[in-house]
Amino acid sequence: MTGGFALEQRLRIRVYLEDTDAGGVVYHATYLRFMERVRTELLRAAGLQQSETFQSDVSFVVHSLELAYQRPAMLDDEVEVSCRVAEARPASLTFEQEVTRVSDGEVCCRGRVRVACISIASKRPKRIPPELLERIQAPPAP
Amino acid sequence: MTGGFALEQRLRIRVYLEDTDAGGVVYHATYLRFMERVRTELLRAAGLQQSETFQSDVSFVVHSLELAYQRPAMLDDEVEVSCRVAEARPASLTFEQEVTRVSDGEVCCRGRVRVACISIASKRPKRIPPELLERIQAPPAP
Amino acid sequence: MTGGFALEQRLRIRVYLEDTDAGGVVYHATYLRFMERVRTELLRAAGLQQSETFQSDVSFVVHSLELAYQRPAMLDDEVEVSCRVAEARPASLTFEQEVTRVSDGEVCCRGRVRVACISIASKRPKRIPPELLERIQAPPAP
Amino acid sequence: MTGGFALEQRLRIRVYLEDTDAGGVVYHATYLRFMERVRTELLRAAGLQQSETFQSDVSFVVHSLELAYQRPAMLDDEVEVSCRVAEARPASLTFEQEVTRVSDGEVCCRGRVRVACISIASKRPKRIPPELLERIQAPPAP
Repeated sequence: MTGGFALEQRLRIRVYLEDTDAGGVVYHATYLRFMERVRTELLRAAGLQQSETFQSDVSFVVHSLELAYQRPAMLDDEVEVSCRVAEARPASLTFEQEVTRVSDGEVCCRGRVRVACISIASKRPKRIPPELLERIQAPPAP
Repeated sequence: MTGGFALEQRLRIRVYLEDTDAGGVVYHATYLRFMERVRTELLRAAGLQQSETFQSDVSFVVHSLELAYQRPAMLDDEVEVSCRVAEARPASLTFEQEVTRVSDGEVCCRGRVRVACISIASKRPKRIPPELLERIQAPPAP
Repeated sequence: MTGGFALEQRLRIRVYLEDTDAGGVVYHATYLRFMERVRTELLRAAGLQQSETFQSDVSFVVHSLELAYQRPAMLDDEVEVSCRVAEARPASLTFEQEVTRVSDGEVCCRGRVRVACISIASKRPKRIPPELLERIQAPPAP
Repeated sequence: MTGGFALEQRLRIRVYLEDTDAGGVVYHATYLRFMERVRTELLRAAGLQQSETFQSDVSFVVHSLELAYQRPAMLDDEVEVSCRVAEARPASLTFEQEVTRVSDGEVCCRGRVRVACISIASKRPKRIPPELLERIQAPPAP
Protein backbone atom coordinates (compact mmCIF):
# COMPACT_ATOMS: atom_id res chain seq x y z
CA MET A 1 0.00 0.00 0.00
CA THR A 2 1.21 3.48 -0.82
CA GLY A 3 0.08 6.93 0.12
CA GLY A 4 0.07 6.28 3.84
CA PHE A 5 -3.37 7.53 4.71
CA ALA A 6 -3.40 8.63 8.32
CA LEU A 7 -6.48 7.69 10.33
CA GLU A 8 -5.91 10.83 12.29
CA GLN A 9 -5.84 14.36 11.00
CA ARG A 10 -4.91 17.66 12.63
CA LEU A 11 -5.44 21.21 11.47
CA ARG A 12 -4.34 24.51 12.99
CA ILE A 13 -7.04 27.15 12.83
CA ARG A 14 -6.82 30.82 13.75
CA VAL A 15 -9.84 32.33 15.54
CA TYR A 16 -11.14 35.38 13.68
CA LEU A 17 -13.84 37.89 14.57
CA GLU A 18 -16.35 35.91 12.48
CA ASP A 19 -15.95 32.98 14.89
CA THR A 20 -16.74 34.91 18.08
CA ASP A 21 -19.84 36.35 19.71
CA ALA A 22 -20.74 39.27 21.96
CA GLY A 23 -19.87 37.12 24.99
CA GLY A 24 -16.25 37.69 23.91
CA VAL A 25 -15.56 34.03 23.16
CA VAL A 26 -15.86 31.62 20.26
CA TYR A 27 -19.56 31.09 19.42
CA HIS A 28 -20.65 27.59 20.39
CA ALA A 29 -21.69 26.55 16.87
CA THR A 30 -18.33 27.65 15.48
CA TYR A 31 -16.68 24.52 16.90
CA LEU A 32 -18.85 22.44 14.57
CA ARG A 33 -17.52 24.41 11.62
CA PHE A 34 -13.94 23.89 12.82
CA MET A 35 -14.51 20.16 13.32
CA GLU A 36 -15.99 19.75 9.88
CA ARG A 37 -12.94 21.34 8.28
CA VAL A 38 -10.72 18.62 9.76
CA ARG A 39 -13.10 15.78 8.87
CA THR A 40 -13.05 17.10 5.31
CA GLU A 41 -9.24 17.10 5.30
CA LEU A 42 -9.14 13.57 6.71
CA LEU A 43 -11.46 12.33 3.97
CA ARG A 44 -9.51 14.29 1.36
CA ALA A 45 -6.31 12.60 2.58
CA ALA A 46 -8.17 9.30 2.10
CA GLY A 47 -8.91 10.24 -1.49
CA LEU A 48 -12.37 11.74 -1.15
CA GLN A 49 -13.17 15.21 -2.44
CA GLN A 50 -16.52 16.38 -1.05
CA SER A 51 -17.34 18.09 -4.36
CA GLU A 52 -16.66 14.90 -6.33
CA THR A 53 -18.95 12.84 -4.14
CA PHE A 54 -21.74 15.18 -5.15
CA GLN A 55 -21.13 14.11 -8.75
CA SER A 56 -21.22 10.41 -7.92
CA ASP A 57 -24.42 10.72 -5.89
CA VAL A 58 -22.62 10.07 -2.62
CA SER A 59 -22.58 12.51 0.24
CA PHE A 60 -21.68 12.39 3.89
CA VAL A 61 -24.12 14.07 6.21
CA VAL A 62 -23.93 14.44 9.95
CA HIS A 63 -26.10 11.80 11.62
CA SER A 64 -25.65 12.71 15.28
CA LEU A 65 -23.12 14.35 17.54
CA GLU A 66 -22.16 15.10 21.10
CA LEU A 67 -20.13 18.10 22.17
CA ALA A 68 -18.66 19.02 25.56
CA TYR A 69 -17.39 22.57 25.95
CA GLN A 70 -14.56 22.87 28.44
CA ARG A 71 -12.77 26.23 28.12
CA PRO A 72 -13.70 29.05 25.79
CA ALA A 73 -11.37 29.72 22.88
CA MET A 74 -10.88 33.44 22.36
CA LEU A 75 -10.33 35.88 19.53
CA ASP A 76 -6.82 35.57 18.00
CA ASP A 77 -6.24 32.18 19.63
CA GLU A 78 -4.69 29.54 17.49
CA VAL A 79 -6.37 26.19 18.04
CA GLU A 80 -5.47 22.73 16.87
CA VAL A 81 -8.40 20.59 15.83
CA SER A 82 -7.96 16.84 15.73
CA CYS A 83 -10.04 14.16 14.07
CA ARG A 84 -9.73 10.41 14.61
CA VAL A 85 -11.86 7.64 13.08
CA ALA A 86 -13.36 5.91 16.11
CA GLU A 87 -15.65 3.55 14.25
CA ALA A 88 -16.18 2.59 10.59
CA ARG A 89 -19.44 0.88 9.63
CA PRO A 90 -20.78 0.04 6.15
CA ALA A 91 -22.82 3.23 5.92
CA SER A 92 -21.44 5.46 8.66
CA LEU A 93 -18.23 6.74 10.20
CA THR A 94 -17.77 7.98 13.75
CA PHE A 95 -15.09 10.55 14.51
CA GLU A 96 -13.64 11.71 17.81
CA GLN A 97 -12.51 15.29 17.72
CA GLU A 98 -10.84 17.80 19.99
CA VAL A 99 -10.20 21.52 19.80
CA THR A 100 -7.10 22.48 21.78
CA ARG A 101 -5.64 25.94 22.31
CA VAL A 102 -2.06 25.89 21.04
CA SER A 103 -0.62 28.43 23.48
CA ASP A 104 -1.40 26.49 26.67
CA GLY A 105 -2.57 23.07 25.50
CA GLU A 106 -6.00 23.53 27.10
CA VAL A 107 -8.80 21.49 25.56
CA CYS A 108 -11.60 23.88 24.60
CA CYS A 109 -14.10 21.42 23.17
CA ARG A 110 -14.43 17.66 22.70
CA GLY A 111 -16.80 16.05 20.24
CA ARG A 112 -17.99 12.76 18.86
CA VAL A 113 -19.56 13.05 15.43
CA ARG A 114 -21.20 10.31 13.41
CA VAL A 115 -21.62 10.91 9.70
CA ALA A 116 -23.81 8.81 7.46
CA CYS A 117 -23.22 8.07 3.81
CA ILE A 118 -26.29 8.94 1.71
CA SER A 119 -27.44 9.14 -1.85
CA ILE A 120 -27.87 12.77 -2.81
CA ALA A 121 -30.72 11.96 -5.18
CA SER A 122 -32.80 9.91 -2.76
CA LYS A 123 -31.46 11.34 0.53
CA ARG A 124 -31.44 7.70 1.73
CA PRO A 125 -28.54 5.85 3.40
CA LYS A 126 -26.02 4.29 1.04
CA ARG A 127 -22.95 2.09 1.51
CA ILE A 128 -19.66 3.89 1.76
CA PRO A 129 -17.70 3.40 -1.50
CA PRO A 130 -15.59 0.27 -0.77
CA GLU A 131 -12.31 1.79 -1.93
CA LEU A 132 -12.77 4.64 0.54
CA LEU A 133 -13.75 2.34 3.40
CA GLU A 134 -10.72 0.16 2.68
CA ARG A 135 -8.36 3.06 2.88
CA ILE A 136 -9.92 4.14 6.16
CA GLN A 137 -9.74 0.68 7.70
CA ALA A 138 -6.31 -0.21 6.39
CA PRO A 139 -3.41 0.65 8.64
CA PRO A 140 -1.33 3.49 7.25
CA ALA A 141 1.86 2.49 5.49
CA PRO A 142 4.85 2.22 7.82
CA MET B 1 -54.34 42.93 -11.54
CA THR B 2 -54.78 41.09 -8.29
CA GLY B 3 -52.45 40.24 -5.48
CA GLY B 4 -51.03 43.73 -5.17
CA PHE B 5 -47.37 42.88 -5.19
CA ALA B 6 -45.54 45.51 -3.24
CA LEU B 7 -42.25 46.72 -4.75
CA GLU B 8 -41.11 47.27 -1.22
CA GLN B 9 -40.74 44.71 1.52
CA ARG B 10 -39.98 45.03 5.22
CA LEU B 11 -39.01 42.41 7.78
CA ARG B 12 -38.43 42.66 11.52
CA ILE B 13 -35.41 40.69 12.67
CA ARG B 14 -34.20 40.04 16.21
CA VAL B 15 -30.45 40.14 16.81
CA TYR B 16 -29.23 36.91 18.40
CA LEU B 17 -25.81 35.91 19.74
CA GLU B 18 -25.02 34.21 16.40
CA ASP B 19 -25.21 37.62 14.70
CA THR B 20 -22.69 39.38 16.94
CA ASP B 21 -18.93 39.34 17.39
CA ALA B 22 -16.41 39.85 20.18
CA GLY B 23 -16.52 43.60 19.53
CA GLY B 24 -19.95 43.45 21.21
CA VAL B 25 -21.87 44.47 18.09
CA VAL B 26 -23.47 42.86 15.05
CA TYR B 27 -20.74 41.33 12.86
CA HIS B 28 -20.36 43.31 9.63
CA ALA B 29 -21.18 40.39 7.32
CA THR B 30 -24.37 39.66 9.25
CA TYR B 31 -26.09 42.64 7.60
CA LEU B 32 -25.73 40.87 4.25
CA ARG B 33 -27.55 37.86 5.68
CA PHE B 34 -30.32 40.11 7.02
CA MET B 35 -30.65 41.93 3.70
CA GLU B 36 -30.87 38.70 1.76
CA ARG B 37 -33.76 37.50 3.93
CA VAL B 38 -35.82 40.52 2.89
CA ARG B 39 -34.91 40.25 -0.79
CA THR B 40 -36.04 36.64 -0.62
CA GLU B 41 -39.36 37.68 0.93
CA LEU B 42 -39.85 40.39 -1.70
CA LEU B 43 -39.28 37.86 -4.49
CA ARG B 44 -41.50 35.34 -2.73
CA ALA B 45 -44.25 37.97 -2.56
CA ALA B 46 -43.74 38.41 -6.32
CA GLY B 47 -44.31 34.71 -6.81
CA LEU B 48 -40.75 33.43 -6.81
CA GLN B 49 -39.61 30.66 -4.49
CA GLN B 50 -35.82 30.43 -4.46
CA SER B 51 -35.98 26.64 -4.22
CA GLU B 52 -38.27 26.42 -7.27
CA THR B 53 -35.97 28.52 -9.39
CA PHE B 54 -33.30 25.93 -8.79
CA GLN B 55 -35.59 23.40 -10.47
CA SER B 56 -36.18 25.61 -13.50
CA ASP B 57 -32.48 26.36 -13.94
CA VAL B 58 -32.89 29.97 -12.87
CA SER B 59 -31.09 31.47 -9.93
CA PHE B 60 -30.41 34.93 -8.64
CA VAL B 61 -26.88 35.59 -7.51
CA VAL B 62 -25.40 38.73 -6.07
CA HIS B 63 -23.55 40.66 -8.78
CA SER B 64 -22.20 43.59 -6.78
CA LEU B 65 -23.03 45.59 -3.69
CA GLU B 66 -22.19 48.66 -1.65
CA LEU B 67 -22.70 48.92 2.10
CA ALA B 68 -22.36 51.87 4.44
CA TYR B 69 -22.32 51.11 8.16
CA GLN B 70 -23.68 53.93 10.28
CA ARG B 71 -24.43 52.75 13.82
CA PRO B 72 -23.81 49.32 15.26
CA ALA B 73 -26.83 47.18 15.96
CA MET B 74 -26.45 45.32 19.26
CA LEU B 75 -27.40 42.02 20.82
CA ASP B 76 -31.16 41.78 21.54
CA ASP B 77 -31.95 44.75 19.29
CA GLU B 78 -34.91 44.40 17.02
CA VAL B 79 -34.13 45.79 13.59
CA GLU B 80 -36.35 46.45 10.60
CA VAL B 81 -34.82 45.62 7.26
CA SER B 82 -36.27 47.20 4.13
CA CYS B 83 -35.88 46.30 0.50
CA ARG B 84 -36.96 48.37 -2.50
CA VAL B 85 -36.50 47.59 -6.19
CA ALA B 86 -34.45 50.51 -7.45
CA GLU B 87 -33.87 49.24 -10.96
CA ALA B 88 -35.16 46.30 -13.02
CA ARG B 89 -33.18 45.27 -16.12
CA PRO B 90 -33.68 42.22 -18.37
CA ALA B 91 -31.11 40.14 -16.50
CA SER B 92 -30.57 41.98 -13.22
CA LEU B 93 -32.38 43.70 -10.37
CA THR B 94 -30.98 46.40 -8.10
CA PHE B 95 -32.29 46.75 -4.57
CA GLU B 96 -31.88 49.54 -2.04
CA GLN B 97 -31.93 48.30 1.51
CA GLU B 98 -31.76 49.71 5.01
CA VAL B 99 -31.37 48.18 8.44
CA THR B 100 -33.00 50.37 11.09
CA ARG B 101 -33.09 49.80 14.85
CA VAL B 102 -36.74 49.70 15.92
CA SER B 103 -36.30 51.20 19.41
CA ASP B 104 -34.86 54.55 18.28
CA GLY B 105 -35.26 54.61 14.50
CA GLU B 106 -31.48 54.87 13.95
CA VAL B 107 -30.25 53.58 10.60
CA CYS B 108 -27.54 50.98 11.27
CA CYS B 109 -26.62 50.06 7.72
CA ARG B 110 -27.57 51.12 4.18
CA GLY B 111 -26.95 48.99 1.13
CA ARG B 112 -27.40 48.83 -2.61
CA VAL B 113 -27.35 45.28 -3.95
CA ARG B 114 -27.50 44.20 -7.59
CA VAL B 115 -28.48 40.61 -8.26
CA ALA B 116 -28.07 38.91 -11.61
CA CYS B 117 -30.27 36.21 -13.04
CA ILE B 118 -28.23 33.19 -14.11
CA SER B 119 -28.65 29.68 -15.41
CA ILE B 120 -27.66 27.22 -12.70
CA ALA B 121 -26.37 24.71 -15.24
CA SER B 122 -24.14 27.06 -17.20
CA LYS B 123 -23.56 29.71 -14.48
CA ARG B 124 -24.07 32.26 -17.30
CA PRO B 125 -26.43 35.27 -17.26
CA LYS B 126 -30.02 34.57 -18.25
CA ARG B 127 -33.11 36.75 -18.78
CA ILE B 128 -35.38 37.12 -15.79
CA PRO B 129 -38.54 35.03 -16.34
CA PRO B 130 -40.96 37.53 -18.02
CA GLU B 131 -43.87 36.81 -15.66
CA LEU B 132 -41.66 37.68 -12.70
CA LEU B 133 -40.25 40.82 -14.30
CA GLU B 134 -43.77 41.91 -15.19
CA ARG B 135 -44.96 41.59 -11.62
CA ILE B 136 -41.94 43.56 -10.41
CA GLN B 137 -42.40 46.34 -12.96
CA ALA B 138 -46.16 46.56 -12.68
CA PRO B 139 -47.45 49.06 -10.18
CA PRO B 140 -49.01 47.39 -7.17
CA ALA B 141 -52.79 47.22 -7.16
CA PRO B 142 -54.38 50.27 -5.55
CA MET C 1 -48.52 34.32 40.33
CA THR C 2 -48.92 36.56 37.33
CA GLY C 3 -47.11 36.75 34.04
CA GLY C 4 -47.55 33.09 33.31
CA PHE C 5 -44.06 32.21 32.17
CA ALA C 6 -44.28 29.21 29.91
CA LEU C 7 -41.62 26.56 30.45
CA GLU C 8 -41.90 25.83 26.79
CA GLN C 9 -41.24 28.13 23.89
CA ARG C 10 -41.78 27.79 20.15
CA LEU C 11 -40.54 29.85 17.26
CA ARG C 12 -41.25 29.62 13.54
CA ILE C 13 -38.14 30.12 11.43
CA ARG C 14 -37.84 30.41 7.67
CA VAL C 15 -34.87 28.69 6.03
CA TYR C 16 -32.86 31.15 3.92
CA LEU C 17 -29.90 30.63 1.60
CA GLU C 18 -27.52 31.56 4.45
CA ASP C 19 -28.70 28.48 6.36
CA THR C 20 -28.00 25.95 3.61
CA ASP C 21 -24.91 24.34 2.10
CA ALA C 22 -23.81 22.97 -1.27
CA GLY C 23 -25.38 19.63 -0.36
CA GLY C 24 -28.71 21.39 -0.96
CA VAL C 25 -29.90 21.11 2.63
CA VAL C 26 -29.67 23.05 5.89
CA TYR C 27 -26.03 23.05 7.08
CA HIS C 28 -25.66 20.90 10.20
CA ALA C 29 -24.39 23.71 12.44
CA THR C 30 -27.33 25.90 11.46
CA TYR C 31 -29.63 23.89 13.74
CA LEU C 32 -27.57 25.08 16.70
CA ARG C 33 -28.20 28.67 15.66
CA PHE C 34 -31.92 27.99 15.34
CA MET C 35 -32.06 26.29 18.73
CA GLU C 36 -30.26 29.14 20.41
CA ARG C 37 -32.80 31.63 19.08
CA VAL C 38 -35.59 29.79 20.87
CA ARG C 39 -33.64 29.36 24.13
CA THR C 40 -33.04 33.10 24.03
CA GLU C 41 -36.77 33.75 23.58
CA LEU C 42 -37.62 31.36 26.41
CA LEU C 43 -35.23 33.17 28.74
CA ARG C 44 -36.51 36.53 27.52
CA ALA C 45 -40.06 35.40 28.33
CA ALA C 46 -38.74 34.54 31.82
CA GLY C 47 -37.43 38.07 32.19
CA LEU C 48 -33.85 37.63 31.09
CA GLN C 49 -32.32 39.77 28.34
CA GLN C 50 -29.01 38.28 27.20
CA SER C 51 -27.52 41.76 26.77
CA GLU C 52 -28.50 42.78 30.32
CA THR C 53 -26.89 39.71 31.83
CA PHE C 54 -23.63 40.89 30.31
CA GLN C 55 -23.98 44.05 32.42
CA SER C 56 -24.59 42.11 35.63
CA ASP C 57 -21.66 39.77 35.05
CA VAL C 58 -23.91 36.81 34.37
CA SER C 59 -23.90 34.88 31.15
CA PHE C 60 -25.22 31.56 29.95
CA VAL C 61 -22.82 29.49 27.91
CA VAL C 62 -23.40 26.13 26.32
CA HIS C 63 -21.89 23.41 28.51
CA SER C 64 -22.64 20.33 26.40
CA LEU C 65 -25.10 19.12 23.83
CA GLU C 66 -26.34 16.16 21.86
CA LEU C 67 -27.97 16.41 18.45
CA ALA C 68 -29.66 13.78 16.29
CA TYR C 69 -30.35 14.71 12.69
CA GLN C 70 -33.37 12.93 11.25
CA ARG C 71 -34.52 14.57 8.00
CA PRO C 72 -32.87 17.45 6.23
CA ALA C 73 -34.68 20.75 6.27
CA MET C 74 -34.48 22.46 2.89
CA LEU C 75 -34.27 25.94 1.46
CA ASP C 76 -37.56 27.88 1.82
CA ASP C 77 -38.90 25.42 4.41
CA GLU C 78 -40.61 26.89 7.40
CA VAL C 79 -39.58 25.06 10.55
CA GLU C 80 -40.90 25.25 14.08
CA VAL C 81 -38.26 25.09 16.76
CA SER C 82 -39.30 24.11 20.27
CA CYS C 83 -37.53 24.49 23.59
CA ARG C 84 -38.49 22.90 26.88
CA VAL C 85 -36.71 23.13 30.24
CA ALA C 86 -35.89 19.51 31.05
CA GLU C 87 -33.82 20.15 34.15
CA ALA C 88 -33.04 23.21 36.30
CA ARG C 89 -30.00 23.05 38.61
CA PRO C 90 -28.43 25.84 40.69
CA ALA C 91 -25.86 26.69 38.01
CA SER C 92 -27.16 25.03 34.85
CA LEU C 93 -30.28 24.48 32.77
CA THR C 94 -30.94 21.62 30.39
CA PHE C 95 -33.22 22.14 27.42
CA GLU C 96 -34.84 19.64 25.08
CA GLN C 97 -35.36 21.00 21.62
CA GLU C 98 -36.85 19.93 18.33
CA VAL C 99 -36.82 21.34 14.82
CA THR C 100 -39.93 20.31 12.91
CA ARG C 101 -40.85 21.09 9.31
CA VAL C 102 -44.21 22.88 9.36
CA SER C 103 -45.50 21.60 6.01
CA ASP C 104 -45.43 17.88 6.88
CA GLY C 105 -44.71 17.75 10.61
CA GLU C 106 -41.47 15.81 10.06
CA VAL C 107 -38.89 16.17 12.81
CA CYS C 108 -35.64 17.35 11.22
CA CYS C 109 -33.42 17.51 14.29
CA ARG C 110 -33.66 16.74 18.00
CA GLY C 111 -31.33 18.16 20.59
CA ARG C 112 -30.56 18.24 24.27
CA VAL C 113 -28.56 21.30 25.30
CA ARG C 114 -27.16 22.06 28.74
CA VAL C 115 -26.21 25.67 29.41
CA ALA C 116 -24.15 26.78 32.39
CA CYS C 117 -24.42 30.06 34.22
CA ILE C 118 -21.03 31.78 34.43
CA SER C 119 -19.44 35.01 35.56
CA ILE C 120 -18.32 36.96 32.52
CA ALA C 121 -15.37 38.44 34.39
CA SER C 122 -13.95 35.21 35.78
CA LYS C 123 -15.41 32.78 33.21
CA ARG C 124 -16.17 30.54 36.22
CA PRO C 125 -19.52 28.90 37.06
CA LYS C 126 -21.98 31.05 38.99
CA ARG C 127 -25.39 30.45 40.52
CA ILE C 128 -28.36 31.31 38.36
CA PRO C 129 -29.96 34.55 39.65
CA PRO C 130 -32.64 33.27 42.11
CA GLU C 131 -35.47 35.36 40.66
CA LEU C 132 -34.83 33.82 37.25
CA LEU C 133 -34.57 30.28 38.59
CA GLU C 134 -37.80 30.80 40.52
CA ARG C 135 -39.66 31.87 37.44
CA ILE C 136 -38.33 28.87 35.55
CA GLN C 137 -39.23 26.40 38.28
CA ALA C 138 -42.62 27.87 39.10
CA PRO C 139 -45.54 26.36 37.27
CA PRO C 140 -47.04 28.74 34.72
CA ALA C 141 -50.21 30.53 35.80
CA PRO C 142 -53.34 28.56 34.95
CA MET D 1 13.49 50.04 10.42
CA THR D 2 13.36 46.33 11.13
CA GLY D 3 10.70 43.73 10.71
CA GLY D 4 9.84 44.66 7.15
CA PHE D 5 6.10 45.05 7.43
CA ALA D 6 4.56 44.32 4.08
CA LEU D 7 1.73 46.63 3.03
CA GLU D 8 0.27 43.68 1.23
CA GLN D 9 -0.85 40.39 2.69
CA ARG D 10 -1.99 37.15 1.10
CA LEU D 11 -3.71 34.13 2.61
CA ARG D 12 -4.68 30.80 1.07
CA ILE D 13 -8.10 29.63 2.18
CA ARG D 14 -9.82 26.32 1.48
CA VAL D 15 -13.55 26.43 0.76
CA TYR D 16 -15.48 24.16 3.13
CA LEU D 17 -19.14 23.19 3.22
CA GLU D 18 -19.80 25.93 5.81
CA ASP D 19 -18.84 28.52 3.18
CA THR D 20 -21.28 27.37 0.50
CA ASP D 21 -25.02 27.57 -0.06
CA ALA D 22 -27.73 25.52 -1.75
CA GLY D 23 -26.92 27.26 -5.04
CA GLY D 24 -23.80 25.08 -5.02
CA VAL D 25 -21.36 27.99 -4.77
CA VAL D 26 -19.71 30.07 -2.07
CA TYR D 27 -22.37 32.13 -0.23
CA HIS D 28 -22.02 35.81 -1.09
CA ALA D 29 -21.43 36.96 2.50
CA THR D 30 -18.66 34.38 2.94
CA TYR D 31 -16.29 36.54 0.88
CA LEU D 32 -16.54 39.20 3.59
CA ARG D 33 -15.42 36.65 6.16
CA PHE D 34 -12.50 35.61 3.95
CA MET D 35 -11.47 39.23 3.37
CA GLU D 36 -11.56 40.01 7.05
CA ARG D 37 -9.20 37.13 7.82
CA VAL D 38 -6.54 38.67 5.58
CA ARG D 39 -7.03 42.21 6.92
CA THR D 40 -6.55 40.77 10.38
CA GLU D 41 -3.32 39.07 9.31
CA LEU D 42 -2.07 42.27 7.68
CA LEU D 43 -2.71 44.22 10.88
CA ARG D 44 -1.16 41.43 12.94
CA ALA D 45 1.95 41.62 10.75
CA ALA D 46 1.98 45.36 11.50
CA GLY D 47 1.96 44.59 15.22
CA LEU D 48 -1.72 44.81 15.98
CA GLN D 49 -3.58 41.99 17.69
CA GLN D 50 -7.35 42.52 17.42
CA SER D 51 -7.86 41.13 20.94
CA GLU D 52 -5.28 43.54 22.40
CA THR D 53 -6.91 46.56 20.84
CA PHE D 54 -10.04 45.65 22.76
CA GLN D 55 -8.02 46.07 25.95
CA SER D 56 -6.71 49.49 24.94
CA ASP D 57 -10.15 50.75 23.92
CA VAL D 58 -9.27 50.74 20.24
CA SER D 59 -11.12 48.75 17.67
CA PHE D 60 -11.38 48.69 13.92
CA VAL D 61 -14.87 48.44 12.51
CA VAL D 62 -15.95 48.29 8.91
CA HIS D 63 -17.12 51.73 7.77
CA SER D 64 -18.17 50.97 4.19
CA LEU D 65 -17.41 48.54 1.42
CA GLU D 66 -17.96 47.69 -2.22
CA LEU D 67 -17.87 44.18 -3.61
CA ALA D 68 -18.00 42.93 -7.20
CA TYR D 69 -18.62 39.23 -7.69
CA GLN D 70 -17.07 37.87 -10.87
CA ARG D 71 -16.96 34.06 -10.82
CA PRO D 72 -18.32 31.78 -8.14
CA ALA D 73 -15.80 29.95 -6.00
CA MET D 74 -16.90 26.38 -5.38
CA LEU D 75 -16.70 23.75 -2.67
CA ASP D 76 -13.15 22.36 -2.24
CA ASP D 77 -11.61 25.25 -4.19
CA GLU D 78 -8.50 26.78 -2.77
CA VAL D 79 -8.60 30.55 -3.06
CA GLU D 80 -5.96 33.15 -2.43
CA VAL D 81 -7.20 36.29 -0.75
CA SER D 82 -5.13 39.45 -1.04
CA CYS D 83 -5.22 42.67 0.94
CA ARG D 84 -3.46 45.92 0.10
CA VAL D 85 -3.59 49.23 1.98
CA ALA D 86 -4.97 51.64 -0.61
CA GLU D 87 -5.30 54.65 1.67
CA ALA D 88 -4.29 55.47 5.26
CA ARG D 89 -6.02 58.38 6.98
CA PRO D 90 -5.76 59.48 10.64
CA ALA D 91 -8.85 57.53 11.66
CA SER D 92 -9.47 55.11 8.81
CA LEU D 93 -7.77 52.65 6.48
CA THR D 94 -8.96 51.58 3.05
CA PHE D 95 -8.04 48.16 1.73
CA GLU D 96 -8.28 46.71 -1.76
CA GLN D 97 -8.88 42.99 -1.75
CA GLU D 98 -9.23 40.16 -4.22
CA VAL D 99 -10.29 36.54 -3.95
CA THR D 100 -8.64 34.45 -6.67
CA ARG D 101 -9.09 30.75 -7.37
CA VAL D 102 -5.68 29.10 -7.17
CA SER D 103 -6.29 26.38 -9.76
CA ASP D 104 -7.00 28.69 -12.71
CA GLY D 105 -6.13 32.18 -11.48
CA GLU D 106 -9.71 33.40 -12.01
CA VAL D 107 -10.75 36.35 -9.85
CA CYS D 108 -13.90 35.39 -7.96
CA CYS D 109 -14.54 38.60 -6.05
CA ARG D 110 -13.00 42.07 -5.78
CA GLY D 111 -13.58 44.39 -2.86
CA ARG D 112 -12.72 47.78 -1.45
CA VAL D 113 -13.20 47.97 2.32
CA ARG D 114 -12.80 51.01 4.53
CA VAL D 115 -12.36 50.39 8.24
CA ALA D 116 -12.64 53.09 10.86
CA CYS D 117 -10.76 53.22 14.12
CA ILE D 118 -13.13 53.67 17.06
CA SER D 119 -13.16 53.77 20.83
CA ILE D 120 -14.85 50.64 22.14
CA ALA D 121 -16.24 52.48 25.15
CA SER D 122 -17.81 55.40 23.30
CA LYS D 123 -18.24 53.75 19.86
CA ARG D 124 -16.97 57.07 18.45
CA PRO D 125 -14.16 57.58 15.90
CA LYS D 126 -10.65 57.68 17.34
CA ARG D 127 -7.19 58.31 15.85
CA ILE D 128 -5.28 55.24 14.79
CA PRO D 129 -2.45 54.60 17.31
CA PRO D 130 0.52 56.51 15.80
CA GLU D 131 2.97 53.60 16.05
CA LEU D 132 0.59 51.46 14.01
CA LEU D 133 -0.06 54.15 11.41
CA GLU D 134 3.69 54.71 11.11
CA ARG D 135 4.35 51.08 10.42
CA ILE D 136 1.61 51.03 7.79
CA GLN D 137 2.84 54.17 6.06
CA ALA D 138 6.53 53.32 6.24
CA PRO D 139 7.94 51.53 3.24
CA PRO D 140 8.78 47.93 4.00
CA ALA D 141 12.44 47.19 4.71
CA PRO D 142 14.38 46.29 1.57
